Amino acid sequence: MKVAIIGVGLTRFGELWETSFSHLFVEAGANALRDAGVDGKDVEAIFVGNMSAGRFVDQEHISCLIADQAGLNPIPATRIEAACASGGHALRQGIMSILSGFHDLVVVGGVEKMTDVMTESTTQTLATAADQEWEAFLGMTFPGLYAMMARRHMYEFGTTREQLALVSVKNHRNAIHNPYAQYHVEITVDDVLNSPIIADPLRLLDCSPITDGAACVVLASERKAREYTDSPIYITGSGQATSTLSLHSRKQIPVVDSTINAAKEAYKRAGKSPKDIQVAEVHDAFTIGEIMAIENLGFFNIGEGGKATEEGETEIGGKIPVNTSGGLKAKGHPVGATGVAQAVEIVLQLRGDAKGRQVDADIGLTHNVGGSGGTAVVHIYEKG
Amino acid sequence: MKVAIIGVGLTRFGELWETSFSHLFVEAGANALRDAGVDGKDVEAIFVGNMSAGRFVDQEHISCLIADQAGLNPIPATRIEAACASGGHALRQGIMSILSGFHDLVVVGGVEKMTDVMTESTTQTLATAADQEWEAFLGMTFPGLYAMMARRHMYEFGTTREQLALVSVKNHRNAIHNPYAQYHVEITVDDVLNSPIIADPLRLLDCSPITDGAACVVLASERKAREYTDSPIYITGSGQATSTLSLHSRKQIPVVDSTINAAKEAYKRAGKSPKDIQVAEVHDAFTIGEIMAIENLGFFNIGEGGKATEEGETEIGGKIPVNTSGGLKAKGHPVGATGVAQAVEIVLQLRGDAKGRQVDADIGLTHNVGGSGGTAVVHIYEKG
Repeated sequence: MKVAIIGVGLTRFGELWETSFSHLFVEAGANALRDAGVDGKDVEAIFVGNMSAGRFVDQEHISCLIADQAGLNPIPATRIEAACASGGHALRQGIMSILSGFHDLVVVGGVEKMTDVMTESTTQTLATAADQEWEAFLGMTFPGLYAMMARRHMYEFGTTREQLALVSVKNHRNAIHNPYAQYHVEITVDDVLNSPIIADPLRLLDCSPITDGAACVVLASERKAREYTDSPIYITGSGQATSTLSLHSRKQIPVVDSTINAAKEAYKRAGKSPKDIQVAEVHDAFTIGEIMAIENLGFFNIGEGGKATEEGETEIGGKIPVNTSGGLKAKGHPVGATGVAQAVEIVLQLRGDAKGRQVDADIGLTHNVGGSGGTAVVHIYEKG
Repeated sequence: MKVAIIGVGLTRFGELWETSFSHLFVEAGANALRDAGVDGKDVEAIFVGNMSAGRFVDQEHISCLIADQAGLNPIPATRIEAACASGGHALRQGIMSILSGFHDLVVVGGVEKMTDVMTESTTQTLATAADQEWEAFLGMTFPGLYAMMARRHMYEFGTTREQLALVSVKNHRNAIHNPYAQYHVEITVDDVLNSPIIADPLRLLDCSPITDGAACVVLASERKAREYTDSPIYITGSGQATSTLSLHSRKQIPVVDSTINAAKEAYKRAGKSPKDIQVAEVHDAFTIGEIMAIENLGFFNIGEGGKATEEGETEIGGKIPVNTSGGLKAKGHPVGATGVAQAVEIVLQLRGDAKGRQVDADIGLTHNVGGSGGTAVVHIYEKG
């Protein structure tokens, strides 16, 4: 498989009180089209990843709203929801739409408006990504679920509290060089360890923030891509998998088997293995999430992610730089947009456009998780 | 394009107080697999159409829940939302997944649980399919939007109140022979005209009901289909389009241009024209919806849908039987499931399995609308 990304665009991530839900998407989309040198009238379809506009802004049917607000009626627009993996799912559907022969050039984006919301609390809406009957209804929230994974990881593998903190420290350091990131502030291990406890052992600075934002990529068939650029980035692998929705049903608590299965499919389609990957954006909604991800993606052995982080293997300049964008922790995590924003970062890295945080890489990977690991989606990218 | 439907399954439609959201989907899916003679372990992916489980049952991330409850982890599962067109969108994504070469056999379903709901009123949640800023926030609901379309249709084309009622009378008559339908009761024009007014000129019996239910189809590549059946039904055309989300932005109020554009694409892909269609399921969420649909799909000239209905052209035995299942009005309208349930009915008709309501047809069509016409999706089916 081979589908090209010929343009990328973001909004600033953060608390964007003056920008409406639909305008977030339109802004990121316009940036992506400008980057690609594509005119709006040449877009054949839109795919939108979004978790919960229905609850956050009382608006379902958002694919239609976006096509309308972008002035792109009557082209088809399709919304995909998979909690925090909505963006990654949308990317996969966009890829399928091109490989199926339906389309040659589409915009895939993700968007979430999580501040200035209309119904209940943001945390309660995020909890609808967990199992309502067995988890959320009983009061469980995501910090609680990831805290249990962290505690078990520490118990089974000897992962330390400091190792968790180092994920956050690294990602904040990387975000300094990402102008679109929510936070531009360096933090220390002590800052993390002294931040308020949220769900033991996780503290405030182990948790990704609440964020407004959108991200878009312009996808094209190989043939179409050549009309616009001599140096497309190709998506050569895609994998998607499910696991149980509720954490207690999993065979192993500190191993995300959906990530393992999604990665297996993506590596197979791309004809690659973990050792081929030179830069990765992974799903660090909580610091323990990054540690499990780098293990489950095969970059390090199970149980050795904490140690690898401590030894600097995932730093820019390390064995495999992870979350050069700042990750969900410091770049911000507008849940539906995250999967697409990860793709944007890898494209910038492979193109050599990641100013200040640039790594030397020809092959990259994105890893996007829904809920506590009920869904995972992995993509692999290569320089054209 | 050519993708086969090799099995179909439904739940009973109605107020299903004893069946949970996920079990609705699992029941319809099991019925479809049994009908196809396919074992669960041979399913490669699931596509789910659903409008608003996030609000109705406080559960997003439902693709994962369904794969989990169906015992089908770790296969990928993807949720698509497009208001009342969610099912039709899911079908199109399932088709793309096969034509792209990603999969050979997938389950596409739709589901909605609209009774026994957790947040606010069902009508308020349905209104999130309209433009929140310009319509829903100001108190507009769907009966109101369709009432304006009906009033304008009557004004411009002379469509009569009785002609609207005849849509409902026909669809209730058809539903008598559909064991899965919500209502098995014949009604008269007088019943409609004397039913409580909802939004002038629409009355209670002009409106589709609130319904729980699910519908599934098993989709297969041509090659894979031959392993299971000698008589698949092929989907040979697919079209999807958007229009403005808000009704007041449309060029013409009583003409749904998204339907016209979606139909154009579907006819083109199938190499067919309106006169080739021998049976159709169209989106009669309100009686005026069916009249506009049969015009915009090209079965009758614009403005002549009411007259055609009055003359019996859309009855079983007429020029083009429409909504033999009972339609949304009498079969019921679990919004996310509707688009897939329409496909189920056309497959039953083309296979000759529509007992009591059977028509003579080799080519059929489904037409699924989101909101007041912001989205439309059309599929064309042919006997293998």
